[in-house]
Amino acid sequence: MTAMQLGLVGLGKMGGNMRERIRRAGHTVIGYDRNPELADVHSLEELVGALEAPRVVWVMVPAGAATQSTVDQLGDLLEPGDTVVDGGNSRWTDDEKHAEELAAKGIGFVDAGVSGGVWGLQNGYALMVGGDTENVARVQPVFDALKPEGDAGFVHAGKVGAGHFSKMVHNGIEYAMMQAYAEGWELLEKVHSVTDVREVFRSWQEGTVIRSWLLDLAVNALDDDEHLDKLRGYADDSGEGRWTVEAAIDNAVPLPAITASLFARFASRQDDSPQMKMIAALRNQFGGHAVESAE
Amino acid sequence: MTAMQLGLVGLGKMGGNMRERIRRAGHTVIGYDRNPELADVHSLEELVGALEAPRVVWVMVPAGAATQSTVDQLGDLLEPGDTVVDGGNSRWTDDEKHAEELAAKGIGFVDAGVSGGVWGLQNGYALMVGGDTENVARVQPVFDALKPEGDAGFVHAGKVGAGHFSKMVHNGIEYAMMQAYAEGWELLEKVHSVTDVREVFRSWQEGTVIRSWLLDLAVNALDDDEHLDKLRGYADDSGEGRWTVEAAIDNAVPLPAITASLFARFASRQDDSPQMKMIAALRNQFGGHAVESAE
Amino acid sequence: MTAMQLGLVGLGKMGGNMRERIRRAGHTVIGYDRNPELADVHSLEELVGALEAPRVVWVMVPAGAATQSTVDQLGDLLEPGDTVVDGGNSRWTDDEKHAEELAAKGIGFVDAGVSGGVWGLQNGYALMVGGDTENVARVQPVFDALKPEGDAGFVHAGKVGAGHFSKMVHNGIEYAMMQAYAEGWELLEKVHSVTDVREVFRSWQEGTVIRSWLLDLAVNALDDDEHLDKLRGYADDSGEGRWTVEAAIDNAVPLPAITASLFARFASRQDDSPQMKMIAALRNQFGGHAVESAE
Amino acid sequence: MTAMQLGLVGLGKMGGNMRERIRRAGHTVIGYDRNPELADVHSLEELVGALEAPRVVWVMVPAGAATQSTVDQLGDLLEPGDTVVDGGNSRWTDDEKHAEELAAKGIGFVDAGVSGGVWGLQNGYALMVGGDTENVARVQPVFDALKPEGDAGFVHAGKVGAGHFSKMVHNGIEYAMMQAYAEGWELLEKVHSVTDVREVFRSWQEGTVIRSWLLDLAVNALDDDEHLDKLRGYADDSGEGRWTVEAAIDNAVPLPAITASLFARFASRQDDSPQMKMIAALRNQFGGHAVESAE
Repeated sequence: MTAMQLGLVGLGKMGGNMRERIRRAGHTVIGYDRNPELADVHSLEELVGALEAPRVVWVMVPAGAATQSTVDQLGDLLEPGDTVVDGGNSRWTDDEKHAEELAAKGIGFVDAGVSGGVWGLQNGYALMVGGDTENVARVQPVFDALKPEGDAGFVHAGKVGAGHFSKMVHNGIEYAMMQAYAEGWELLEKVHSVTDVREVFRSWQEGTVIRSWLLDLAVNALDDDEHLDKLRGYADDSGEGRWTVEAAIDNAVPLPAITASLFARFASRQDDSPQMKMIAALRNQFGGHAVESAE
Repeated sequence: MTAMQLGLVGLGKMGGNMRERIRRAGHTVIGYDRNPELADVHSLEELVGALEAPRVVWVMVPAGAATQSTVDQLGDLLEPGDTVVDGGNSRWTDDEKHAEELAAKGIGFVDAGVSGGVWGLQNGYALMVGGDTENVARVQPVFDALKPEGDAGFVHAGKVGAGHFSKMVHNGIEYAMMQAYAEGWELLEKVHSVTDVREVFRSWQEGTVIRSWLLDLAVNALDDDEHLDKLRGYADDSGEGRWTVEAAIDNAVPLPAITASLFARFASRQDDSPQMKMIAALRNQFGGHAVESAE
Repeated sequence: MTAMQLGLVGLGKMGGNMRERIRRAGHTVIGYDRNPELADVHSLEELVGALEAPRVVWVMVPAGAATQSTVDQLGDLLEPGDTVVDGGNSRWTDDEKHAEELAAKGIGFVDAGVSGGVWGLQNGYALMVGGDTENVARVQPVFDALKPEGDAGFVHAGKVGAGHFSKMVHNGIEYAMMQAYAEGWELLEKVHSVTDVREVFRSWQEGTVIRSWLLDLAVNALDDDEHLDKLRGYADDSGEGRWTVEAAIDNAVPLPAITASLFARFASRQDDSPQMKMIAALRNQFGGHAVESAE
Repeated sequence: MTAMQLGLVGLGKMGGNMRERIRRAGHTVIGYDRNPELADVHSLEELVGALEAPRVVWVMVPAGAATQSTVDQLGDLLEPGDTVVDGGNSRWTDDEKHAEELAAKGIGFVDAGVSGGVWGLQNGYALMVGGDTENVARVQPVFDALKPEGDAGFVHAGKVGAGHFSKMVHNGIEYAMMQAYAEGWELLEKVHSVTDVREVFRSWQEGTVIRSWLLDLAVNALDDDEHLDKLRGYADDSGEGRWTVEAAIDNAVPLPAITASLFARFASRQDDSPQMKMIAALRNQFGGHAVESAE
């Protein structure tokens, strides 16, 4: 292995752990964050100055405005031959734009979808990467440091955007898998012939068709709180699920299970459902059915 | 028209109005109800005794145990050549059973799905009828009295069960149509470029592809309560929607929109969604995502 | 009524009939179309030259590039004080852009969603309109000519974009209503207790909760072809359904029935479903289940 | 471990492998099958005669009529104190009936949902078991022989029916998980920025949130046939998915993702979709939209 130097922008929950894992593999990481307590340097300028050309700078900040602003600044600070990696949760459609803006200045661009959450430091991060072969090759030692052991966990999925697109679809699949377990759990909890739903879930961890890492996490969660009484039935969504459905619509691909999973999350966040008010109103109009008043 | 005699069992909201409409058409109706204030006679025995053979008795009581009990008693009281009509919301699978039980005693059976709600007295009741031609013919004067004016509003849909089956599918369609307007209304209310959603709905009543009686009811409801603030987003379901989906599953027919409409009602009745607790738990396990506690 | 002059660009199936209906109301319409056989003038220049200021020009061409190009040309040809109406199926997000481009030149803009199809010439066109009060007022005589008789059929829904947004939601609702009838029809056709499904549909036209103009059309279609044997189960979609779902996703509004209806259309256009190949492959992998080969 | 004797009825793909795995664990298995080439004995009578009381007989035949008939015969042949295990795919509602019928004769009953498919011989079979503690305990040595190594893979889920109910929900979850991967795969295959979808799937096997045994099988399938060109997009369903949705409907539990997965299979088996013919017919009626004729 050739030890390499990496600039890393964004040292939050994900970025901080990634810095640690890359360093353990023997590489040098210089990290910058707006929070000076987390950072190795005080500014992007200092970060760029501290790296030898050709530089590789990994951006790990929130998708949208923060990523755009960082890419813009790096475009001004870096030199031809340098490479920017966007490892955040950017929409794949942003990648082409970033690649073009940087290419105009001779700077390479690679998009990297990163999966692994809080378990990545220990188990490694799965990486889905998009970009030209040449640019990807420059970052490969860092990818090798981040990825899990074994043959899987890394793919060069295609041209710029293919990494984030693959990660987005990964998350779409994740939505429907989580929904699958959640629906099964609710049904088992509701029907009284099953005495101990948690033990049913635990039993599924070996020998079944549905064994998975998510199932292991479900058992962990039930061990903490058998009937999940401590939680509200409230689920956020983080963008990738929405983009997956939008990409499917643009391509006329039916995604009924993934979309149902997304809509279930939307509904979970409504204190009172407007559309169900209309259903109640219509039932009242034609049938004199009892309705519940808002009070 | 030949005036006929009808025994009518069940004089609630529906049955009471039907008695009135049949009488207005010149027929004789003898009504029985457990509530003596509503009834013309004091018992089923008295009802049967007051009718001349061959008798026609229309049962208009809740589906399930009440209908079964009434059919059983009429089987004991009536004579060969008499006819029972089940105009309640029975499941079509009950009809065959009732028809067989009565046929063993020489008594005819007709099932009649009735639509119209509180508007039926004035506008007429749409009728979907199942049974042998001979039995249906005996009840035809009453059907003619109940149905709306015009060519539509009555169908002899097929053999025993076909009436309630058709009415059940009618209600399944109704679920999805109501859901369609409800979804559209929520989206319009949510997006602020549209100033007055009620006026948009009102405008749709003429010239559009989606004009319908349900749309007219929606406008009535919005005229009463522009943003439906007085209602909770809580919708019951009355059986037919469930049976429609079950019939579809038995016959391998995909019903995505009708089923989605049924599930939306189920979800509307949950204060907190168990499946969404599981989603929240899983998100917390893998990503350290913030969750909302039950408190 | 004050007779007014209107320039109309696009004289296809919709535009041609609209010209006729506006003329019948006593207004002057000068129409332009790329097809000289349909047109009253030979160019947009000639059209603009033939109208007296302040001019109103109604654009009725395909959404997207054709509308953009027409708006661009009219921006160059018209004068301050003139007004452009986009009556096509443009996405509401395009309207703000067009309004800004024209406002920079002192030209007003109104977006109008138009419903009515081939029945509009006779019955009138329902109109959902967005724009400033002043601009809408200038076009009002034409709106009055196009709309159906009666109180409904026209709404000034809000600011620029609100017209097309309302029309888009109308179409989303339409998707789910059509799907509702289609699901019910398939279930009735599949289950053999119902002898004559067409007569069941016909009976629903009076007195039922689900009576509607779409139901009337369904009966017309079944009168032409009782079991729809002459048609393939293949349904296009025209953009508004997709935009409705995308708008819902952007606003975190769950639209399960409308989205299911859209996905059913997507699936109808696939000769062979890729996702079902994967299901078949997985079943084969774990269970040795029989699969069907592509041959 | 105490070696025990087991009678096993049904030696097909599942039963044959189970006999082998139980024997490897040191127990005695006497197998009966209608196919004499597979059987150890020639009749159920001979099977029962060859076992010492108290007997345990495991039934592993198709759900429905075959299981009912076998249970009936065993009820006549066995003695008080014996135990019947139904390890087939029976509906949980059948279990109570079977348990009652056998209990009247002093015979115990246990229901066992079995997962594992063609991989069970090697990896073990996951078992979800319902019944009285006493009856389950009698069969425990066989359960221990069948289950995978490790703590998971076996659960006594509750009273009679709880085993098959848990297995049914397992299969419902499986439907939605398979659908999740299938939807993601189709979307990736459709969008051209991703060069090699198979390698994306392979990369997901380590470090991702969606790693699972089903994902491993998907990679196996893609290794056999990269684009699944050899398969038709046609998927059967085996009953448990339908029963899961019906149980949910009976309990007012919304299952949008599982139900969508079931409906996608139904649709995959239709050469031409009747409901989409109706959509096409309606579009033609109101808009003069082009339709595709059946030829």
